[in-house]
Amino acid sequence: MQPIDLRQAMAQSYPGASLGRVLLVGSGPGDPELLTVKALKALQTADVVLFDTLVAKPILDLISPLAERMHVGKKGYGDTRPQDEINARMVALALAGRFVVRLKSGDPLIFGRAGEEIDACRAAGVPVEVVPGITSAQGAAARLCVSLTHRHEARRLQYITGHDTTGGLPQCIDWKAVADPQATTVVYMPRRTIGALAAQALAAGLDPSTPAIVVINATRPNERMVATTVAALVASVAASETPDPTLVLIGQAMARAVLPVVAADVA
Amino acid sequence: MQPIDLRQAMAQSYPGASLGRVLLVGSGPGDPELLTVKALKALQTADVVLFDTLVAKPILDLISPLAERMHVGKKGYGDTRPQDEINARMVALALAGRFVVRLKSGDPLIFGRAGEEIDACRAAGVPVEVVPGITSAQGAAARLCVSLTHRHEARRLQYITGHDTTGGLPQCIDWKAVADPQATTVVYMPRRTIGALAAQALAAGLDPSTPAIVVINATRPNERMVATTVAALVASVAASETPDPTLVLIGQAMARAVLPVVAADVA
Repeated sequence: MQPIDLRQAMAQSYPGASLGRVLLVGSGPGDPELLTVKALKALQTADVVLFDTLVAKPILDLISPLAERMHVGKKGYGDTRPQDEINARMVALALAGRFVVRLKSGDPLIFGRAGEEIDACRAAGVPVEVVPGITSAQGAAARLCVSLTHRHEARRLQYITGHDTTGGLPQCIDWKAVADPQATTVVYMPRRTIGALAAQALAAGLDPSTPAIVVINATRPNERMVATTVAALVASVAASETPDPTLVLIGQAMARAVLPVVAADVA
Repeated sequence: MQPIDLRQAMAQSYPGASLGRVLLVGSGPGDPELLTVKALKALQTADVVLFDTLVAKPILDLISPLAERMHVGKKGYGDTRPQDEINARMVALALAGRFVVRLKSGDPLIFGRAGEEIDACRAAGVPVEVVPGITSAQGAAARLCVSLTHRHEARRLQYITGHDTTGGLPQCIDWKAVADPQATTVVYMPRRTIGALAAQALAAGLDPSTPAIVVINATRPNERMVATTVAALVASVAASETPDPTLVLIGQAMARAVLPVVAADVA
């Protein structure tokens, strides 16, 4: 056995840190054990960590006490702080020679707006790298113990977002692709637009009885899940009103999901 | 700071292990630092680990010396050991009271045939859970420092597989969905069928100049990447003949990828 010695590895892991650079790090869906080893090392060696509102509290507790923490406020729905301001601050810190960790919920490269932050770093000549994270769809599927690509039921897995940067349903969604009975579709940030989204998918031919699962706070202690159908989806999302991170998983393969038993159900 | 103490956590993490159960664990694309903390704990507390050929050697080195190791031979392309035999062995070990870790490359729930293994456990009354892993597409995108969902360029991210369990191009792929200029498409296990796949996507209207990146051994020391176009994809895949794990990323957003400099290029 060669167990990873975190203390030793930390000392070696980022020898170039003193040069000033940005590391975009995915924190995963919320369970701190779903951090990658690489992400954990980054949190424990950063000079400064810029984090979004959606990053789970137990993950923030893993940040080095020597690191400066900056809450930059993004919630996913309608940013409370403009993206340009985050980019400028991140770049300025790196240009001042600091090792900047930009910590995001899920995977920075999947609906995390990392593209804009990478562009800002490149434009400023700041070295930038990415540590991927478990995306919420994967965390939810693991909790549901269901394959996202079950043989004979899901030939294709697709992720779409329920809103664009204006907060409305994105333009250019291929609704026929969403209506495909051989696909599993995961809708990120569905809350504001789930009614319009379901209507478009049904109009494009999706079977209204297709299984759908609403997942709130995937992998967190306050996780909640509701199994429903596309036809009943709008009511299910409305009934579970919350500002917390929400996903919807849609597809025939989701009929095999087993919802975790929660304490409230047992009592 | 509350650093995770792996030794202490290991002792506490799976108190029910003596009851016999199966944990399907994703090992990620190959870099051992892309293991989740939860996966690492599982490798260090398992009684027995059943692993596929594609799991990277440095990850196998993290398995507890007290655990029995069983190579079950699956390579992704044409299994060398039938799935039914793997299921039977896994279930028999759990029924004998052992904590069985079933270790797979990537994420078990994304083209990992976990669905069949979950079904086998449920049929036998064996408790089964899943630890998700970074899937190869995420590892490759991180190495390329490119968003899979870049704003204005990719409204949808989709994963498809280049072959079904017979080794041929899967039936029921929605080619219009693959041809969507607003999507990023990742093809897993493309080698045998990339010609037929590209031809179908082009026939469905995909622009032949759409950027495509071939990634072999994503995140491993022997990683190789080739940037090309859909029109030239077949030649690029054929030129990089290898039995190693291969992916193809397709979409306008991939034009922003920066291929890592490899030692051979510098020399």
